[in-house]
Amino acid sequence: MSTTDSQLFAQRESVEQVEEGDVLAPKFDEHGLIAVVTTDAKSGELLMHGYMNAEALEKTIETGEAHYWSRSRQVLWHKGATSGLTQKIVEMRIDDDQDAVWLRVDVAGSGASCHVGYRSCFYREVPTGAAGSEPVKLTYREDEKTFDPQDVYGDVPNPTQL
Amino acid sequence: MSTTDSQLFAQRESVEQVEEGDVLAPKFDEHGLIAVVTTDAKSGELLMHGYMNAEALEKTIETGEAHYWSRSRQVLWHKGATSGLTQKIVEMRIDDDQDAVWLRVDVAGSGASCHVGYRSCFYREVPTGAAGSEPVKLTYREDEKTFDPQDVYGDVPNPTQL
Repeated sequence: MSTTDSQLFAQRESVEQVEEGDVLAPKFDEHGLIAVVTTDAKSGELLMHGYMNAEALEKTIETGEAHYWSRSRQVLWHKGATSGLTQKIVEMRIDDDQDAVWLRVDVAGSGASCHVGYRSCFYREVPTGAAGSEPVKLTYREDEKTFDPQDVYGDVPNPTQL
Repeated sequence: MSTTDSQLFAQRESVEQVEEGDVLAPKFDEHGLIAVVTTDAKSGELLMHGYMNAEALEKTIETGEAHYWSRSRQVLWHKGATSGLTQKIVEMRIDDDQDAVWLRVDVAGSGASCHVGYRSCFYREVPTGAAGSEPVKLTYREDEKTFDPQDVYGDVPNPTQL
């Protein structure tokens, strides 16, 4: 689906229209994707970073629940369809040049959003300001997983790719 | 610069190492970039979405100030070098599969991060749940610009691309 196939998206006509206008004219990259930042509406915590294609963006707008494009599985992905951890949109925003979307969500169930089992995908800190000559050591900022991925996902292939 | 050129980054060896390990092994895409989400450390507000190449990630780790790769200008971009609105890293995190970075920052000066003049790049809301057959109308969530882009950037080309 190209941008022009959706009745919900305007054509991108000028920098002024895109930046200062009041109409949705999203920019999809060469893979047909737009970046998505998802934060917890209550805590403000960053939960995940993902991508939508035009269909996922349409379905998110229409249903008020987060849909993504899974790059690893190459399918439309209704977040929570397997795990039950759906994301209800509290507020959706778009950035200046309309190539990134921000979702503020309420997560169902345990509130987790990471397939590894943590609440946030961003469970490790990267220290800054004192880099040496060795690979940087990460520090865990979540103490324990909120669920066991094996119980939830079973034999579904892990989406992480090397 | 490829991943292997930096002493700060480990080779990506296994899903377990990437997801459950304690060593930085970032994944750069086919353009050599990793996605970056930048939030205000105090308010939690999403300020911007950008990208880093390996050099920008190294410089951010080494200096504790946000560096990005400008896709429009194709240059290493020390945020704030032109505007004075530098971003000091309060905390930096990386996600499960290590292809996205989260910066929690203190912004110098007025605290703005958007080249259009707003505090956040995400100054417009996209309504959800009641899509019709017309392009979606956006709602402004910031009332006024924090600076005049013409004063700050002068004749620097606008980074937004159609």
